Amino acid sequence: MSLLTPGWQRSGGLVDDAALVAAMVRVEAAWLQVTAGLELPEVAGLDLDADPTGNPVTPLVAALRAAASDDVAPLIHRGLTSQDVLDTALQLLTRDALVAITDSLDAAVGSLADLARTHRDAVMAGRTLTQYAVPVTFGLVAAQWLVGLLDARDGVRAVRRVVPVQCGGAAGTLSLADTVLEADPVATAADFADELGLAWPGLPWHTRRTPVTRAGDAVVEALDAAGVIAADVLLLGRAENGEVREGARDGAGGSSTMPHKQNPVLATVVRSASMQAPQLGATLHLAAGNAVDQRPDGAWHAEWPTLQRLLGLGIVATSQVAELTAGLQVDVDLMRRRAEENAEALLAESRGVTDVDHYLGAAGAFVDEALARAAGRDRADG
Amino acid sequence: MSLLTPGWQRSGGLVDDAALVAAMVRVEAAWLQVTAGLELPEVAGLDLDADPTGNPVTPLVAALRAAASDDVAPLIHRGLTSQDVLDTALQLLTRDALVAITDSLDAAVGSLADLARTHRDAVMAGRTLTQYAVPVTFGLVAAQWLVGLLDARDGVRAVRRVVPVQCGGAAGTLSLADTVLEADPVATAADFADELGLAWPGLPWHTRRTPVTRAGDAVVEALDAAGVIAADVLLLGRAENGEVREGARDGAGGSSTMPHKQNPVLATVVRSASMQAPQLGATLHLAAGNAVDQRPDGAWHAEWPTLQRLLGLGIVATSQVAELTAGLQVDVDLMRRRAEENAEALLAESRGVTDVDHYLGAAGAFVDEALARAAGRDRADG
Amino acid sequence: MSLLTPGWQRSGGLVDDAALVAAMVRVEAAWLQVTAGLELPEVAGLDLDADPTGNPVTPLVAALRAAASDDVAPLIHRGLTSQDVLDTALQLLTRDALVAITDSLDAAVGSLADLARTHRDAVMAGRTLTQYAVPVTFGLVAAQWLVGLLDARDGVRAVRRVVPVQCGGAAGTLSLADTVLEADPVATAADFADELGLAWPGLPWHTRRTPVTRAGDAVVEALDAAGVIAADVLLLGRAENGEVREGARDGAGGSSTMPHKQNPVLATVVRSASMQAPQLGATLHLAAGNAVDQRPDGAWHAEWPTLQRLLGLGIVATSQVAELTAGLQVDVDLMRRRAEENAEALLAESRGVTDVDHYLGAAGAFVDEALARAAGRDRADG
Amino acid sequence: MSLLTPGWQRSGGLVDDAALVAAMVRVEAAWLQVTAGLELPEVAGLDLDADPTGNPVTPLVAALRAAASDDVAPLIHRGLTSQDVLDTALQLLTRDALVAITDSLDAAVGSLADLARTHRDAVMAGRTLTQYAVPVTFGLVAAQWLVGLLDARDGVRAVRRVVPVQCGGAAGTLSLADTVLEADPVATAADFADELGLAWPGLPWHTRRTPVTRAGDAVVEALDAAGVIAADVLLLGRAENGEVREGARDGAGGSSTMPHKQNPVLATVVRSASMQAPQLGATLHLAAGNAVDQRPDGAWHAEWPTLQRLLGLGIVATSQVAELTAGLQVDVDLMRRRAEENAEALLAESRGVTDVDHYLGAAGAFVDEALARAAGRDRADG
Repeated sequence: MSLLTPGWQRSGGLVDDAALVAAMVRVEAAWLQVTAGLELPEVAGLDLDADPTGNPVTPLVAALRAAASDDVAPLIHRGLTSQDVLDTALQLLTRDALVAITDSLDAAVGSLADLARTHRDAVMAGRTLTQYAVPVTFGLVAAQWLVGLLDARDGVRAVRRVVPVQCGGAAGTLSLADTVLEADPVATAADFADELGLAWPGLPWHTRRTPVTRAGDAVVEALDAAGVIAADVLLLGRAENGEVREGARDGAGGSSTMPHKQNPVLATVVRSASMQAPQLGATLHLAAGNAVDQRPDGAWHAEWPTLQRLLGLGIVATSQVAELTAGLQVDVDLMRRRAEENAEALLAESRGVTDVDHYLGAAGAFVDEALARAAGRDRADG
Repeated sequence: MSLLTPGWQRSGGLVDDAALVAAMVRVEAAWLQVTAGLELPEVAGLDLDADPTGNPVTPLVAALRAAASDDVAPLIHRGLTSQDVLDTALQLLTRDALVAITDSLDAAVGSLADLARTHRDAVMAGRTLTQYAVPVTFGLVAAQWLVGLLDARDGVRAVRRVVPVQCGGAAGTLSLADTVLEADPVATAADFADELGLAWPGLPWHTRRTPVTRAGDAVVEALDAAGVIAADVLLLGRAENGEVREGARDGAGGSSTMPHKQNPVLATVVRSASMQAPQLGATLHLAAGNAVDQRPDGAWHAEWPTLQRLLGLGIVATSQVAELTAGLQVDVDLMRRRAEENAEALLAESRGVTDVDHYLGAAGAFVDEALARAAGRDRADG
Repeated sequence: MSLLTPGWQRSGGLVDDAALVAAMVRVEAAWLQVTAGLELPEVAGLDLDADPTGNPVTPLVAALRAAASDDVAPLIHRGLTSQDVLDTALQLLTRDALVAITDSLDAAVGSLADLARTHRDAVMAGRTLTQYAVPVTFGLVAAQWLVGLLDARDGVRAVRRVVPVQCGGAAGTLSLADTVLEADPVATAADFADELGLAWPGLPWHTRRTPVTRAGDAVVEALDAAGVIAADVLLLGRAENGEVREGARDGAGGSSTMPHKQNPVLATVVRSASMQAPQLGATLHLAAGNAVDQRPDGAWHAEWPTLQRLLGLGIVATSQVAELTAGLQVDVDLMRRRAEENAEALLAESRGVTDVDHYLGAAGAFVDEALARAAGRDRADG
Repeated sequence: MSLLTPGWQRSGGLVDDAALVAAMVRVEAAWLQVTAGLELPEVAGLDLDADPTGNPVTPLVAALRAAASDDVAPLIHRGLTSQDVLDTALQLLTRDALVAITDSLDAAVGSLADLARTHRDAVMAGRTLTQYAVPVTFGLVAAQWLVGLLDARDGVRAVRRVVPVQCGGAAGTLSLADTVLEADPVATAADFADELGLAWPGLPWHTRRTPVTRAGDAVVEALDAAGVIAADVLLLGRAENGEVREGARDGAGGSSTMPHKQNPVLATVVRSASMQAPQLGATLHLAAGNAVDQRPDGAWHAEWPTLQRLLGLGIVATSQVAELTAGLQVDVDLMRRRAEENAEALLAESRGVTDVDHYLGAAGAFVDEALARAAGRDRADG
């Protein structure tokens, strides 16, 4: 189910089913380590069927116990519930995805800072509601893209810092753990989080889904920012415009019938991702608003494939936007020529200015602000 | 990417990537047959990378041509465009999915008709806004579920009858086909449709996406109806209610920690599907509203994985609702007992009626109407 | 709450709160007429507060009864439930909205047919994925817009033909009506529908919401088609393109700072509507999938403002697209000049054709098909 | 357009059209003050028509200038663009809405803390996937609701702290301001923000819409948390359950036909809001991802009514959840009785515990954690 998301391989398997199974195994291993000081036996070739029980944890636990010795088997998963394992595993995938997204955003930030710096004063026609407005600079365009990604990266980082473990047992009270373990169950939960390098959020969140919705919102926000870049590149690179162009890639962009044609492939697929993401985010929120009882009857299940898909889209599209911004070809001569040819329209409000270079207002100052912010944040968050 | 949709195997591979590749090959084969009277050489182990060109057709065509003799190679895909192949392939998958969905709806319709007939007069408490209202019958509840599925099946069938071929060439004019083929291009398009058993819609629809949105809406409507059944089963089967219960399945419904517990697995996952579908449908509409130029720059691409996912969910969830309705356990004794125990509340508006069986109004007539409709439509559409 | 939807006044009050109140009064009047042969007393200045009971019907009924004589008062609303009144009233608004939308679509269809006919052979550059593809004609572009609206109009008409009355009483059994009325309750429901000029759908649909979702889907489909027109007009009218332009309106399109600027106002707001509609449609489907019990606890309520908003958007945006298409300025000379200047790119696949007019394939035939369809459907459905 | 959102009057006019016009006037006044040291003349009875220009600012400016003296008129709006005024006005509404939402969340937090404290050890049946799981306490249920609102309140506060002014002029360069004002345009923008009590975000955000999407996400998150409370109250208060109940309100909750019936009105309408909000949030993100050029052609416009609606829903539904939690009736005796009667099921995993009070694990500790968090955050953020 990946052929129809061009570039899915960029997700590097971070969020696919194999990664999920590995993460679930890792969760069970961490719990066994923390609660019994034992290592989980290795099990090869897990082929889990979620159909009978409605989730993949029950068959996983059965397989793990079957592979263990008789004295270890009952200690596996002892005190946990399916939701503890699946939520935590999905948070491990979330963390990996957010790291990959941050890396791509870092790369794109670097490219855009270069573009903004290089073209700080490169005049071009500003357009509002599709029509010529006043002159701007390509540096400012790049600077606005840059700040969009910086804001999104802040959001992603904020979520990444608090990716939580799930640990509550059958109904969020750690009742079985409290009964069968020798240690305090809350302390055990904290140790469990440590073992996995995740945060212990103080209490379970079986029915409070902010860890999921906030991760979702952060990815959607990143794809909003990526989407603006893609959409602008597509508009500025339209056949009759040509001010920017995607960099050439070997074998890329070709048409199945028109070999001469160079399509803006990266921008197209990034734009496509940004059109899909908001609705996936909405599904996560809907699920969150229906997280009833001590475990909901469908809302939780609606999250799983939606989050998996959204994380994957996030990794892929930010990787593509990093490549897009790294290779972007900017025709500043054409930009200048077009601005000068349309100076009358572009300067109509200016009350006497006749030179497009003399009506740029604070454009340069805004570029500088964006660059300072890019530099400052890099230092602050390194 | 299927472990997180419990029961994904129910989709029988109808909409997965392998099915898509097979459908694309079938489309190219049909075109080669119609335009050149030739059979497409078989190619094994196609491993297509959509990343460079942003769609899977370009590498497919390259692979097909590489496998063909020098005289046949240039005839492959001659006059088509990527969008012709991918749209048509996705419509083939759509047709197969709609057939599978119809089969499941047929099965569920049969089960619900049985339930409505059997329990036509089985009194139970009616509930509005969660509180006791007036008495109803379980037959009426089942009848309403039934009519919901009948309506949805009508919608699915209507779409299925007109699943179209896509055929327009590079920009929707069949220009290359007009130049290189000996036959009239429009007649060729119609032959192409015949060869695939699809409809020729009179003109290409590269930028008019009603075939996609209507298929999407029909599947969403089916999942709305399925969702109501699932949600009602979940409510009536709650621990403190118990009026209905999912039938037992071997190994199904168990909890990872509480072996005694029998979870309503089918209803839960169906409900989960019905929470995901509307937003997928919305993405299809958004894409349709952005189908600009002669082929859009991202909107088209946003459709692909969304439609694939929605079709798959549709097959899986309707299969699950068929199983759910086939096995549903109904405790009519408990229903009656609860209605009688709460007769005072249930008959408060009745102005003197004291027997819950004597305040059922047209419930039986409505059941009969639903059953007649189920029977009649079966005959009409058989 | 209308200032932020430019052109809201185009909705002519058809779906605003006053229209809703009037429709509810009309529903109660029809019921009183059918069940008691009485006329509802007129009540002026109804100011309903939906907060205490969570819907506007309860205070309406109280006000109507207060205004009636002692013998008539208890006959008002006798046997109905709030949902009967509100659902039916919203369907009356739906019908009026669909009529208005059809009228606007008719007008736009006429304008587009003129454009397609007039410019049947006007060559222009075709663009796929933003780049030059092969030549097309503006006639074909208009023809595709036209067929989009024709399809949407079919959908709207299909819904309009079956706009149903809601009539089920407290829990969908017509129990009270059965008890207190002398006539058969189902026959009464049918008379009620006749009185209002609506369809009697055979049984109540309190928890089967296809009348609502299908109306929603039809409006969304109309806004998809309108959205494509708007988006294409915006692209073709971009400052650096100029092939089409919105017609001038007195005082319209001006900027608050740049008086020279003529903004494509209609296309912009239509495009805005097409971006909002799919998510509103999704909310209707979500509500439909949660229509539990004999009246749902929130899902029903989520429909009301969503449907009201979607219907209003539909009326406004189709009115705007009618005005847009009626006034559209097409610069066929520029289209031709640009096509000829880019003939090399546009003819690259053509294998020897050197004249853009000689590589139009079936464009003319497709225009004719669209025009025939517009003509034929007008006759069939008149 | 408010009758169909029961309780809309709770929004106190904060986000209605009159508030918007007042806010736009306030923005123009602040700018005139900062740039010219003048007071804006008062204009009564503004009746703005957004249809001709596609936004309400152009007619507003015309009206303001018409009311001013000849020397003041040209100074009004000098250097601003429509988007500066409308974005800033909507942010003023956003701020007011977030304040109102915070107030309601504060109230609900107080009520829930009381409930959690009072019922810290009140045992009740835990339910997962609708079935009995293990015992929990009502205190823990309330504590989880509480933490949900605390998290949401953190999110709302974080957005509220940085509500920004918009200030960029025609195309985001402050070009006209730079030309006609004596002061540095960036310093002027900062003064403008000060005058309005808003933040100056360093550069304009005409095409970076994080201020809008983050406000939207925060409101959606609040309605997610409110939605869970409402949905739980509805489930626990179902006719056959009865463990909680909405407090009685004068005249509230009544049915139009069944006077005895007490409907859970507040929970119902809150749940309805939580079903609408995610799709409104998605529209804001879609608009953000399409914020092209120096001002987008429709995406910006799609935000306006969507944000207005979402803010209104947020105020209303959080007010309702505050009232709901303040008046909630909890039947701890019934909870205990039901838990004890179902002790066998609830203790099945417990390996020997036979008393529901002795299998509560860390429930009390989690309640304490939630209460500490409620107390601590109040102190920290006071």
